[in-house]
Amino acid sequence: MKNILWNHILAVRTQAPLVHNITNHVVMNNTANALLAIGASPIMAHAREEIDEMVALCQVLVVNIGTLDDVWVDAMLQAARRAQTLNKPWVLDPVGAGATAYRDQVLSQLIALHPTAIRGNASEIMALAKANQSQTKGVDSTAQSQEALAAAQTLHKLTGAVIGISGETDFIVSDQPVVQIHNGTPLMTRVTGLGCTATALIGAFLAVIKNKTEAMIAAIALLSIAGELAEKSSRGPGSLQMNLLDTLYNLTADEFKNTLRIES
Amino acid sequence: MKNILWNHILAVRTQAPLVHNITNHVVMNNTANALLAIGASPIMAHAREEIDEMVALCQVLVVNIGTLDDVWVDAMLQAARRAQTLNKPWVLDPVGAGATAYRDQVLSQLIALHPTAIRGNASEIMALAKANQSQTKGVDSTAQSQEALAAAQTLHKLTGAVIGISGETDFIVSDQPVVQIHNGTPLMTRVTGLGCTATALIGAFLAVIKNKTEAMIAAIALLSIAGELAEKSSRGPGSLQMNLLDTLYNLTADEFKNTLRIES
Amino acid sequence: MKNILWNHILAVRTQAPLVHNITNHVVMNNTANALLAIGASPIMAHAREEIDEMVALCQVLVVNIGTLDDVWVDAMLQAARRAQTLNKPWVLDPVGAGATAYRDQVLSQLIALHPTAIRGNASEIMALAKANQSQTKGVDSTAQSQEALAAAQTLHKLTGAVIGISGETDFIVSDQPVVQIHNGTPLMTRVTGLGCTATALIGAFLAVIKNKTEAMIAAIALLSIAGELAEKSSRGPGSLQMNLLDTLYNLTADEFKNTLRIES
Repeated sequence: MKNILWNHILAVRTQAPLVHNITNHVVMNNTANALLAIGASPIMAHAREEIDEMVALCQVLVVNIGTLDDVWVDAMLQAARRAQTLNKPWVLDPVGAGATAYRDQVLSQLIALHPTAIRGNASEIMALAKANQSQTKGVDSTAQSQEALAAAQTLHKLTGAVIGISGETDFIVSDQPVVQIHNGTPLMTRVTGLGCTATALIGAFLAVIKNKTEAMIAAIALLSIAGELAEKSSRGPGSLQMNLLDTLYNLTADEFKNTLRIES
Repeated sequence: MKNILWNHILAVRTQAPLVHNITNHVVMNNTANALLAIGASPIMAHAREEIDEMVALCQVLVVNIGTLDDVWVDAMLQAARRAQTLNKPWVLDPVGAGATAYRDQVLSQLIALHPTAIRGNASEIMALAKANQSQTKGVDSTAQSQEALAAAQTLHKLTGAVIGISGETDFIVSDQPVVQIHNGTPLMTRVTGLGCTATALIGAFLAVIKNKTEAMIAAIALLSIAGELAEKSSRGPGSLQMNLLDTLYNLTADEFKNTLRIES
Repeated sequence: MKNILWNHILAVRTQAPLVHNITNHVVMNNTANALLAIGASPIMAHAREEIDEMVALCQVLVVNIGTLDDVWVDAMLQAARRAQTLNKPWVLDPVGAGATAYRDQVLSQLIALHPTAIRGNASEIMALAKANQSQTKGVDSTAQSQEALAAAQTLHKLTGAVIGISGETDFIVSDQPVVQIHNGTPLMTRVTGLGCTATALIGAFLAVIKNKTEAMIAAIALLSIAGELAEKSSRGPGSLQMNLLDTLYNLTADEFKNTLRIES
């Protein structure tokens, strides 16, 4: 598995996929920089007049609702519909799912367009599943990670998407056995938008890897490992953000394989 | 006073307040990172469909008009009204006050909604007072800081807000004696958005500190001290921005108390 | 020529021109920081209610269509018209020219407003020329740089603007002999928005230098040299971005003159 994942990382570096992002205002800059650091080519575009052409031009679409409004939601829906029509992969980041009725309503429209992958933290995945499952399940478990896993299974069955749950341990849920990644560092939660960055990287991997579960595993492993290694030379969240980009750019096969802690 | 201010800093770190920002496009990323570095939780959201819920969800609102337009102004006004209704603190950053008639008109609408705090540089505070005082005072003083202090007193009487004037010396004007903070470094003016960052940090402190004057003093002192200390290991504005986040994250009680130069 | 260019750099540092940017969401932060690092004063503003005043207030306008939409395009057109009326310089960055019909249509409207300068990469300059020349020329050359040079000549004749082509070698095309700059480093292409930064710096130089060809040469040389020098102390794109700002801020006459490789 380690060799397969590393080959996927090399595939992104070699093929430099065009990644079309409709994402939030906070993270556009560091998302673009992370995509460039792994060898992908980011495009940010949201004008309805050009959405259809942009989706056609790119290999993958990334939709992130972080700072949504009606104009941007129209663009997201149009782009996701276009990706569906063209049979191109697209990935959804349900930022703030459950926080407001508006987010939940927009997310329901988006997941009806069959995202290839969805990534969020445990509470976002749980909120998304809860708002969209036909009947409420009597989940007895009180463990948050167990609840999130059940929610991810629900979402996967509902949409067909591979589901990523970010946290101290990352979970990847699909029609294959659940995969756990035990990399990363808590300091990453003190840098804004690293979850959004994970979603964008998933997009880059979906663009070049046919197996969507492996694509998500490779992307999440890459970012978590880079963050973990970058922290060693960082004094705080400012230097972590810088070192993370340097590490994504320079990461070697040995560093990747020796650091990866994966379980399935 | 030093102990009180440090305890306020610990309170933010411990209570991790949710800070709702409607701010400008230039600074969203570094504002979010600065809030994370001091232990707060930033949320950026501006859709009118969810403003009411977001304000209710968060402990404080930050409004910054830097890159305003009609859509965002509607969001700012709705959010400020909602904060007023819910009796939640909100802080205003009048970026570019006096530069255009549009900014002045929007600012008049905003200050009518009784911000808890206002922070700007001397020219912004003077422009804001001038545009909103019922009759022009014959201010004879030609010293800019004296003029700004008079303007801040006018603004305080008009709105009830505690007023912060940023500059080489920072002034905090309220119903208590004027406080001066003599920290910071000129290199901070070469990093975009550190004034906006100060305003966001004031928001985080207002969320957890009842005394709004102390909240503003603590926030401004924290950022100025962190900038001053960060500069020692910086070669220019690029490294200052990085080191500032690291320093905000790591600052100790001793560093804070030994560096603070406050006068009242 | 080296002394003339260095004096232009000093002129920007001394005169601190106000640079009005209507630019894309991805690069606002690092564009503002780069302008601050060279001594200029950036303003970002796009509300139609204040565009006319902002253009009048500033010494130059920078228009970058990277994340265009109908609201922002209206602002760009209004601002460019205002700059033309006031006889102020303005510079255009045709991001993604040729990628979509919408971009090409917007760019045709913009170049009809006579930008003082246009900067893009080879494919953008070629697309812009192709979409706007009255009759297609039978360009036989297959060398991309030669094609781009012919396109730049076409654009220069059409608009009167000085044209910059960014790449491994940068070309500046005007009514004077073509100038080539052989500075920079490939790692700069792994940091988002350094082309956009070049355009913003061109704006700052146009604000204070009458000879628009020299203004563009100085701006492109400054950024390329700073990137080349910054790379020496960088481990990847993250540290390059930081070191670039530090280098722009600290660059000395000797460093500039000893590093510059210019040809005309």
